[in-house]
Amino acid sequence: MRPNALKRLWASGGAAVNGWLSIPSSFAAETMAHQGWDSLTVDLQHGVLDYGTAVPLLQAVSTTPVTPLARVPWLEEGIVMKMLDAGCYGIICPMIESAADADRLVRACRYPPRGRRSFGPIRATLYGGADYFLKANEEIVIFAMIETRAGIDNLEEILAVPGLDAVYIGPADLAIALGAMPQFDHEKGVAREAIEFILRKTTERGLVAGIHNGTARYALSMIELGFQFVTIASDARHLAAKAGEVVAEMRNGLKRDQAPTAPVKATY
Amino acid sequence: MRPNALKRLWASGGAAVNGWLSIPSSFAAETMAHQGWDSLTVDLQHGVLDYGTAVPLLQAVSTTPVTPLARVPWLEEGIVMKMLDAGCYGIICPMIESAADADRLVRACRYPPRGRRSFGPIRATLYGGADYFLKANEEIVIFAMIETRAGIDNLEEILAVPGLDAVYIGPADLAIALGAMPQFDHEKGVAREAIEFILRKTTERGLVAGIHNGTARYALSMIELGFQFVTIASDARHLAAKAGEVVAEMRNGLKRDQAPTAPVKATY
Amino acid sequence: MRPNALKRLWASGGAAVNGWLSIPSSFAAETMAHQGWDSLTVDLQHGVLDYGTAVPLLQAVSTTPVTPLARVPWLEEGIVMKMLDAGCYGIICPMIESAADADRLVRACRYPPRGRRSFGPIRATLYGGADYFLKANEEIVIFAMIETRAGIDNLEEILAVPGLDAVYIGPADLAIALGAMPQFDHEKGVAREAIEFILRKTTERGLVAGIHNGTARYALSMIELGFQFVTIASDARHLAAKAGEVVAEMRNGLKRDQAPTAPVKATY
Amino acid sequence: MRPNALKRLWASGGAAVNGWLSIPSSFAAETMAHQGWDSLTVDLQHGVLDYGTAVPLLQAVSTTPVTPLARVPWLEEGIVMKMLDAGCYGIICPMIESAADADRLVRACRYPPRGRRSFGPIRATLYGGADYFLKANEEIVIFAMIETRAGIDNLEEILAVPGLDAVYIGPADLAIALGAMPQFDHEKGVAREAIEFILRKTTERGLVAGIHNGTARYALSMIELGFQFVTIASDARHLAAKAGEVVAEMRNGLKRDQAPTAPVKATY
Amino acid sequence: MRPNALKRLWASGGAAVNGWLSIPSSFAAETMAHQGWDSLTVDLQHGVLDYGTAVPLLQAVSTTPVTPLARVPWLEEGIVMKMLDAGCYGIICPMIESAADADRLVRACRYPPRGRRSFGPIRATLYGGADYFLKANEEIVIFAMIETRAGIDNLEEILAVPGLDAVYIGPADLAIALGAMPQFDHEKGVAREAIEFILRKTTERGLVAGIHNGTARYALSMIELGFQFVTIASDARHLAAKAGEVVAEMRNGLKRDQAPTAPVKATY
Amino acid sequence: MRPNALKRLWASGGAAVNGWLSIPSSFAAETMAHQGWDSLTVDLQHGVLDYGTAVPLLQAVSTTPVTPLARVPWLEEGIVMKMLDAGCYGIICPMIESAADADRLVRACRYPPRGRRSFGPIRATLYGGADYFLKANEEIVIFAMIETRAGIDNLEEILAVPGLDAVYIGPADLAIALGAMPQFDHEKGVAREAIEFILRKTTERGLVAGIHNGTARYALSMIELGFQFVTIASDARHLAAKAGEVVAEMRNGLKRDQAPTAPVKATY
Repeated sequence: MRPNALKRLWASGGAAVNGWLSIPSSFAAETMAHQGWDSLTVDLQHGVLDYGTAVPLLQAVSTTPVTPLARVPWLEEGIVMKMLDAGCYGIICPMIESAADADRLVRACRYPPRGRRSFGPIRATLYGGADYFLKANEEIVIFAMIETRAGIDNLEEILAVPGLDAVYIGPADLAIALGAMPQFDHEKGVAREAIEFILRKTTERGLVAGIHNGTARYALSMIELGFQFVTIASDARHLAAKAGEVVAEMRNGLKRDQAPTAPVKATY
Repeated sequence: MRPNALKRLWASGGAAVNGWLSIPSSFAAETMAHQGWDSLTVDLQHGVLDYGTAVPLLQAVSTTPVTPLARVPWLEEGIVMKMLDAGCYGIICPMIESAADADRLVRACRYPPRGRRSFGPIRATLYGGADYFLKANEEIVIFAMIETRAGIDNLEEILAVPGLDAVYIGPADLAIALGAMPQFDHEKGVAREAIEFILRKTTERGLVAGIHNGTARYALSMIELGFQFVTIASDARHLAAKAGEVVAEMRNGLKRDQAPTAPVKATY
Repeated sequence: MRPNALKRLWASGGAAVNGWLSIPSSFAAETMAHQGWDSLTVDLQHGVLDYGTAVPLLQAVSTTPVTPLARVPWLEEGIVMKMLDAGCYGIICPMIESAADADRLVRACRYPPRGRRSFGPIRATLYGGADYFLKANEEIVIFAMIETRAGIDNLEEILAVPGLDAVYIGPADLAIALGAMPQFDHEKGVAREAIEFILRKTTERGLVAGIHNGTARYALSMIELGFQFVTIASDARHLAAKAGEVVAEMRNGLKRDQAPTAPVKATY
Repeated sequence: MRPNALKRLWASGGAAVNGWLSIPSSFAAETMAHQGWDSLTVDLQHGVLDYGTAVPLLQAVSTTPVTPLARVPWLEEGIVMKMLDAGCYGIICPMIESAADADRLVRACRYPPRGRRSFGPIRATLYGGADYFLKANEEIVIFAMIETRAGIDNLEEILAVPGLDAVYIGPADLAIALGAMPQFDHEKGVAREAIEFILRKTTERGLVAGIHNGTARYALSMIELGFQFVTIASDARHLAAKAGEVVAEMRNGLKRDQAPTAPVKATY
Repeated sequence: MRPNALKRLWASGGAAVNGWLSIPSSFAAETMAHQGWDSLTVDLQHGVLDYGTAVPLLQAVSTTPVTPLARVPWLEEGIVMKMLDAGCYGIICPMIESAADADRLVRACRYPPRGRRSFGPIRATLYGGADYFLKANEEIVIFAMIETRAGIDNLEEILAVPGLDAVYIGPADLAIALGAMPQFDHEKGVAREAIEFILRKTTERGLVAGIHNGTARYALSMIELGFQFVTIASDARHLAAKAGEVVAEMRNGLKRDQAPTAPVKATY
Repeated sequence: MRPNALKRLWASGGAAVNGWLSIPSSFAAETMAHQGWDSLTVDLQHGVLDYGTAVPLLQAVSTTPVTPLARVPWLEEGIVMKMLDAGCYGIICPMIESAADADRLVRACRYPPRGRRSFGPIRATLYGGADYFLKANEEIVIFAMIETRAGIDNLEEILAVPGLDAVYIGPADLAIALGAMPQFDHEKGVAREAIEFILRKTTERGLVAGIHNGTARYALSMIELGFQFVTIASDARHLAAKAGEVVAEMRNGLKRDQAPTAPVKATY
């Protein structure tokens, strides 16, 4: 089985630089896959993606050595198993709030006897190799998202679930859960405290901690803190950011002369 | 019929800031359409688009006031007419090399008696309104791309073809045609000379001159020169540029510690 | 945030005329969006649609002021949240049978603290605006479908669930549940009695009542009764109805002369 | 080879009632295919269709005995041959203006020695049967569209081209060509005269005459005149017509009470 | 309603030869549908399919008399009901482990009063006919997959659930569950014993037993044992097998001369 | 630029084993790409493919070292250039009948000064590398199909066109052109004579000769003769062949017992 490069990177103490795919285009994904990310995550939760549209993105990523991951929309066995069969080397699952949730997640991702993943690695074998079944339980990484009050309260027992590899923090949902505004890159406040708490507990337990970030600067600071998996923004945000910069430079250069025929609007 | 905002902008002496769509995703297109462009061009020549994949992009652009245009892959009546029926308010046609080419292009874009466009504005009426037929010959803009030696040699007679509204320069092809390397933003050399020659002849004739640019800075300088239609890069280049910047910042911050698991590669 | 026109219409005592989208084509949806409906619902339950095919339909609807809604296939958090992120301004959820069901539905549609909707309004922000998060809990409308015996029995407690805005009646399922035949436009019988009972309880509680109808005539009578949200048939039924009328007129005109080469068959 | 029912129908003196597909949805096409049409034409010229989107429509039509045809976007060999390979039993080609055009069309549709159609009936054999090659030249029907002044002027020599089966009139383009407004169902005027002229010449030559119509009433009158192939409107027009009727009835019933939140707009 | 040919075949003591569709292409499905299978199953669990991609496959199958079935990804009401509405005449549901599971499955597939299937057979009526509702509870067949230890332990009570028609064995999952390697065509060992046990119990109860096989030879032996529904491999396996045979023959013929430029790799 | 493995293979005297893609599924293509072919050709002429559906297939092929090629539907610049921009390393063009045809083909495939290919290698650079422009004229291979009487008559002058790399024989079209039946693997007769004539002339001129074959056995014999590029059947034929074998074995085993519910039909 093709080794999971993230596991080797983590074992050596390194941190993975993860990109995020939300645009349903295999060409956009292939473009992203050539930018130097360690891994790329197809986001089926908030991205404009579902199983049918995500598969060609995974193929596009597989034209390069970048490690493919998926965030699933919810803790539902059907889609978790389908994304693994499609060749993802890791699953990020939102809204894990208890050991029972975490165990259900792990069972969906592992073949028996640890789990109850059904056998049929239809693209995973093409991508991973003929011995996929023998090694998949070892190579596939599982991230539980901690982003609610209950998730924080039950963190220790979640971390104790055998087979869980990592925790992933969604700072926006975490902030909302704690009464703050949804944003990335918290420098202080309740969300920041929760982030540091989750990081400490996760690394104490020997698991990998990951987090979604808005900027490279903040992501680097998170690696300094101890995170070993950092996402920066998303393909749609990169696109909007650069296009917005270009248009702003144009409008600034033109401003004495003309107004735009179509107004600039904010983008998520 | 919904007025063509580009024609009003040009009549007032303004220059249109044009974005370029090559990613076959209506979500990416809708994201682009919110960044403040005057117009967006679906590129069926070099973009990863054909008719079937381009139509949803036009719908996405139509959720905003941005003016929709298309570059067709070649001077072929079938696709020119289909893109107009799909609601494009302008056609950019590559490799126009003679008055005969230009006339054939104009005839494909205009209803009789000027042209031979076939009637069936299936989405154009939804977008433009019930009186589309009555005004389309007036509102739709036609760009001839001048990008070869023959195009330059025959420029005056091309510009004399009745019904042509504008010229669009592809600096990369123009450069290759003149023995230089394919690139944007020529500051000097044969391609620069040809650009200035085409601009002068076009504006002398009262037509609009447009050009594809790599950067906002250069596009602004082209407007200074007299261009009234400037494109800056493309959605795919914006995506690659910003993602590349982010990854470079990460790799730079991490460089004492680790190599990437997947190498950075160059992007068109 | 772009206001939800349905909420204003209802507040003024008006009734929304809702169209129904089951054909997976953004062109068909755009055609529907130009016919004068107040709102259009993408039907992921019985329509030939899922998330991937529905998103372009929402974009097509967004080329007009028509309010976009979705019926989800089942009470499953993954798809409810995805349709909201895609920009739907209301969710119609089938088979709500208890206060627990209704509460789970509301929690999936509302951000904390009322609910547990996860943050990531990827297209909703493009459609709704930059302040989407601040107002979404107020603007998004939630419909519980009452269409089973249990739904009727538990109606009062369902209506008491905070955050529920409206009830939607599926007359066909309601009829089957009560031992009658699946049909729309009940004039009498058990289904009619149940419809009137649900209407009375819903409006007493101050919520909006909605219903699916086969004909405009019946829909108007339902508005007379007090419904403020009426659907008439669907895109597929409109298509089949008009095509069927045309062919029938042809066959009738031709009947002395010839039989069809392909027989007419009934359509759902 | 599965016989071409149109040829049998015509041989018996009957007229084919043809439906028109412009919506890129195989479900919409399957719905249309159950309404009693003799044939259905996928319209790649003005419909929102190209090869990739049209193939599933042909499969949907093939779930019934309805005969599948295609209108191609232009006289281009590539797409003509691809639509035949996809299983179409007839080709309608726009803008035939000379015997040379007609001959080029026939040659694209016939295997040698009559033509130069390339061999590769990939779906045509699934649909037509194992002996497709042996009978295709006989069973496939070819329509030349006469819709320009030149087409009328050269009609006799066009009709004399061996292998041409039928003529199809596009009344809207014909009217524009003759200086009138684009519409269907001409009762008088230059377009009507041209229609009758084309009909007379076509039937004198022993070929079948076909025409596009807006209403069943007019189509029946055209059959009375001698046309043996009549199209009535299109799927998109049927959809818009019925939805428009329903909304109008609603708005009329509600008119004392409320204005629509989204205005009705005209549709092609 | 179009009769379910499988039920007639089983009633006469026959065994159905079932093909398996995992490739998301309606052309591949139509090709499969012409090979002589009694039924074809669209596999939404391990196949590269979801609802949106599966519907055109069902249309392709419906161009022939082959009976269409679906395997759903998991016991989730949303997708079960959607596949039935799309015209499937049978549902195969994985991982049934208890009578409660089986009952939930049956309730999702049957209209009231037996079940709680929601009414809206949007394509099922096109395929099955106007009386679909009246007969669907009788014609649709329901398969529970028995492939875990719990499924075996609770087999008798599962089989006793009213409305269940058949059991389907996934030998790979069954083998893993019993501590063996995932494979088809067990000749001996724990998986073989379990297969025979499930067959005996199922047929004693009067239900149909089905099984997935790797080869025709083994499938025939299973029919000999008493199975009445046998699947052989899948479309992707057929494709890989024949292509692999061809390339092997080429490589063998060429072996003295050259190595391949791209290595052969194992396929699932 | 990534080297074109075919050119190295040919230079060393080897023969390329080429597979053929006609199924519009990137999963089917990825499955094919793992079977050991030297190259895979996406067939836009007779395959069920166009540009939009072919691009994901090229991405799927690019997950492996297999060399990607395309057969275009006709000698049309638009599609030739688009397939090159999409990353194809070779173009096979049907129906080349003269030196003018061949020169037009070469000019569409080569950048100036040899040709007039337009610059915009949007995916080709991702696949080939940053120096694509500098080396593409050297690395891309161009095949002219010789399959008509005129092609044979003008063979010498076609072969003399500078820049042409290879000839590809379509035995079915060649046979029809010569009055024989369309088939592969001619052992004798006029088609065989023509094949040997084309081979001799091509190799005398120093170009590579390629041919489409039905079986590996025949393809090996063609390599013996001197062909250096052999295709065997296609993905659709592999699928049909193996499925057909499996069903035949089942029907044979069952034949005393039952007839199929759906008859076997012939496949192209």
